[in-house]
Amino acid sequence: MSVTDELVQNAKAYAERFDKGALPLPPARKVAVLACMDARLNPYGLLGLQEGDAHVIRNAGGVVTDDEIRSLAISQRLLGTEEIILIHHTDCGMLTFTDDEFKRSVQDDVGIKPEWAAEAFSDLDEDVRQSIARIRASPFIPRTDSVRGFVYEVETGRLREVS
Amino acid sequence: MSVTDELVQNAKAYAERFDKGALPLPPARKVAVLACMDARLNPYGLLGLQEGDAHVIRNAGGVVTDDEIRSLAISQRLLGTEEIILIHHTDCGMLTFTDDEFKRSVQDDVGIKPEWAAEAFSDLDEDVRQSIARIRASPFIPRTDSVRGFVYEVETGRLREVS
Repeated sequence: MSVTDELVQNAKAYAERFDKGALPLPPARKVAVLACMDARLNPYGLLGLQEGDAHVIRNAGGVVTDDEIRSLAISQRLLGTEEIILIHHTDCGMLTFTDDEFKRSVQDDVGIKPEWAAEAFSDLDEDVRQSIARIRASPFIPRTDSVRGFVYEVETGRLREVS
Repeated sequence: MSVTDELVQNAKAYAERFDKGALPLPPARKVAVLACMDARLNPYGLLGLQEGDAHVIRNAGGVVTDDEIRSLAISQRLLGTEEIILIHHTDCGMLTFTDDEFKRSVQDDVGIKPEWAAEAFSDLDEDVRQSIARIRASPFIPRTDSVRGFVYEVETGRLREVS
């Protein structure tokens, strides 16, 4: 049995105890969370989110590229969210390589260099501020008065705001 | 108190009961989940994921663009994941508009037309298959023998595989 098969089994148990009925499409708490994809960072447990509460957007690093602008624009413009919470974290894989190294290794391996940036970074707080700056600079995100950035400490479970 | 302030308060409680210690960076279950950002879809509850188990990548629609290829490439090449689970869902916001309509409304509102696709779709199962096809077509994703796609039913809590 593959891991996917096991997780699909878990989903059967979830459906059996499902008692939420039809929740509304727009997030109840009017917030979008943008976080790193890291396995140790569970936005539901960390922020106490329940089904229906918030949009959750995630990628390698929790960075802001065109696709996060797309998701945030749809979240705010069509589904009424008003606040944005950014979460990076300690011991992030994105701190362990550079864009040049990553592209070189891919090119050496498959003969094609990615045409996109890997979005590696060397300073956590700086990259959180970079993500906030990219959101504020976008003409497509209407509400940027509550965009706050945090670092989650995978060692302690603590969430620290970046000022 | 803003919603962000409330969620940060929840994070304090999470840190106080945090007892996981330092988990390894690579996901224990060697799986990456790519799902829609929808508030009603909680991949942790649904799939029974715990902290440390899986990469979770999310965006509007659960679609595959360059940024998801970037995240999946980093997930597989640097952090050892081997299986990919795609999750779309019923009552998705992406079914309620077209790219043309979305771009027009943004252009009318702020005077600039997004240079990226909104990635709206009109058929759930077809878009799941489209996402699988984009992953399989990418030269940057080394392991594509276990890429499986699902539709989560927000009305019932059930997860249905797309064949």
